[in-house]
Amino acid sequence: MINVAIVGYGNLGRGVRSALEKNGDMKFTTLFTRRPEQLSKEFNDVPVLSSEKIALPKDLKIDVAILCGGSKEDTPVQGPVFAHLFNTVDSYDNHSNIPGHYQKMNDIAGKNGHVSIISTGWDPGIYSLERVLGDAFLPGSKNYTFWGTGVSQGHSDAARKVKGVIDARQYTIPVDSALQKVRAGQTPEFTKKEMHKRVVYVVAEEGADRNKIAKEIITMPAYYADYITEVNFITKEEMAKNHAALPHGGFVLTSGITGENTRQITEYRCQLQSNPEFTGSVLVACARAAFRLQQQGSKGAFTMLDIPPALLSPHSAVELRSYFM
Amino acid sequence: MINVAIVGYGNLGRGVRSALEKNGDMKFTTLFTRRPEQLSKEFNDVPVLSSEKIALPKDLKIDVAILCGGSKEDTPVQGPVFAHLFNTVDSYDNHSNIPGHYQKMNDIAGKNGHVSIISTGWDPGIYSLERVLGDAFLPGSKNYTFWGTGVSQGHSDAARKVKGVIDARQYTIPVDSALQKVRAGQTPEFTKKEMHKRVVYVVAEEGADRNKIAKEIITMPAYYADYITEVNFITKEEMAKNHAALPHGGFVLTSGITGENTRQITEYRCQLQSNPEFTGSVLVACARAAFRLQQQGSKGAFTMLDIPPALLSPHSAVELRSYFM
Repeated sequence: MINVAIVGYGNLGRGVRSALEKNGDMKFTTLFTRRPEQLSKEFNDVPVLSSEKIALPKDLKIDVAILCGGSKEDTPVQGPVFAHLFNTVDSYDNHSNIPGHYQKMNDIAGKNGHVSIISTGWDPGIYSLERVLGDAFLPGSKNYTFWGTGVSQGHSDAARKVKGVIDARQYTIPVDSALQKVRAGQTPEFTKKEMHKRVVYVVAEEGADRNKIAKEIITMPAYYADYITEVNFITKEEMAKNHAALPHGGFVLTSGITGENTRQITEYRCQLQSNPEFTGSVLVACARAAFRLQQQGSKGAFTMLDIPPALLSPHSAVELRSYFM
Repeated sequence: MINVAIVGYGNLGRGVRSALEKNGDMKFTTLFTRRPEQLSKEFNDVPVLSSEKIALPKDLKIDVAILCGGSKEDTPVQGPVFAHLFNTVDSYDNHSNIPGHYQKMNDIAGKNGHVSIISTGWDPGIYSLERVLGDAFLPGSKNYTFWGTGVSQGHSDAARKVKGVIDARQYTIPVDSALQKVRAGQTPEFTKKEMHKRVVYVVAEEGADRNKIAKEIITMPAYYADYITEVNFITKEEMAKNHAALPHGGFVLTSGITGENTRQITEYRCQLQSNPEFTGSVLVACARAAFRLQQQGSKGAFTMLDIPPALLSPHSAVELRSYFM
């Protein structure tokens, strides 16, 4: 049995808890949170501890800590703290800072004899893996990642900050004609707006200038200005009824040439009804791998590119060769 | 530079040779074949040696031997012979015998300090990997593998053996409505004929009884009887013009539930204009991994489930973390 601590109990933390119940070889043993007093009422059978002032009771059983906080403020702080104490898994998703995060976690985990698997989930994570596989099997190929249809928290938050906006939800939508071009063997250089469009649902304050709100969202640099964006105003009730789920997904395509001019295309796709539940499930598989890597004598930081895939699986090597090959 | 020998020079051997030219860190250094005298005319710059009576010149440079013969008669014989001498990669595809092949290769490679990566290619190989990943990320999920549209050599050969048939080419075609059901979140138990249909193009002898040929193909046990099969009679010229290529591909779908009832679906697809060229390209990436595994001190047999994916890539770990995550 692999004993797992969850660090942070938002959407992702709940997804990890739910995934642990579906993995018979793993057990949820400890919750670390910023609000232990509040959450301890919800949990009868696991200790609920502060993630900020860490004091560890003697009989705690933790093989791996899964970090479920945000990449902006939580993981950069909690990563080093927990890698000092336990094997860790995180979903750090600031792509450009991954090399720096790797270095930091590799130092601390390495020094403490722990394994830290960083930047897991589906992107970064599975999609990173699929990009590397596509490139390895088709050298010199072109890679395309399309995201969606799904909710982007970052873009939703950005729209929510516009004056007069009470609530907002942004869907990233892949442009189907672009996807079809790649599937048909074309390898264009797309602009951002040729690959994705953005659809925003907004609950506005009563009396707010809707045209002004829409214009401010559509022209917002970094988040919206480079895309075709559609803004729809809806009621608070519609928001609650139709936009409470957090679906996501997308496509990784690799298009390359072998021989003289032979087109070869690989494609990976996720269709997720709940991004945090699926991400949680991936993190749990990675926690299994982290535990096994440490058992094998490994230490330091790993990404999903560095893990023998069999270590992610609940099945033995013999079972995998017999039933999955 | 990784020095690679090719063992067997049919479609797959040619695919490997072509793939080696696209991988700057690898070099084709030796050909082993059953017909060295015949083939040595084609190769000025690499030694062409007998694969049956193996005599190795002193200055031979071989880090990995890629076995490109058939799974029925060649690999079971050549595998042990070459694993004794070198690291090897093979595409052994008799799924039910993979555990036995693993055991045999693991013993021999292990005793001789070599690494043998077995049963690589796309299925078994990449598709095996995708089945394992899908199952690890979505425990209790259902897995569906659809093949095609593509040429099945085994089914083509079977049709070719029918009396009155000069030549035959069989295309395996996934049933689109079945695929769409899985994509839409249904998880039916399909019969064989609900997932795939078979289309055969036949060149018949002049005066042969076409109805009899068609009936014999359609009712052939193991190969055709469980499917809906369409038989088309064409001329030798049409066969040469329209059916010379060896396209293939297919889909691996994993459909599972997280949380209470949240549907999550992953899908991997290959669209291959040439099956042997793509398979060759995958074998070459695995040869890189075999070499690196041995350099790291590993020995024995591996499948693609046992290899850290980064080892397949021509790029360094730092490059992968910077540009592919």
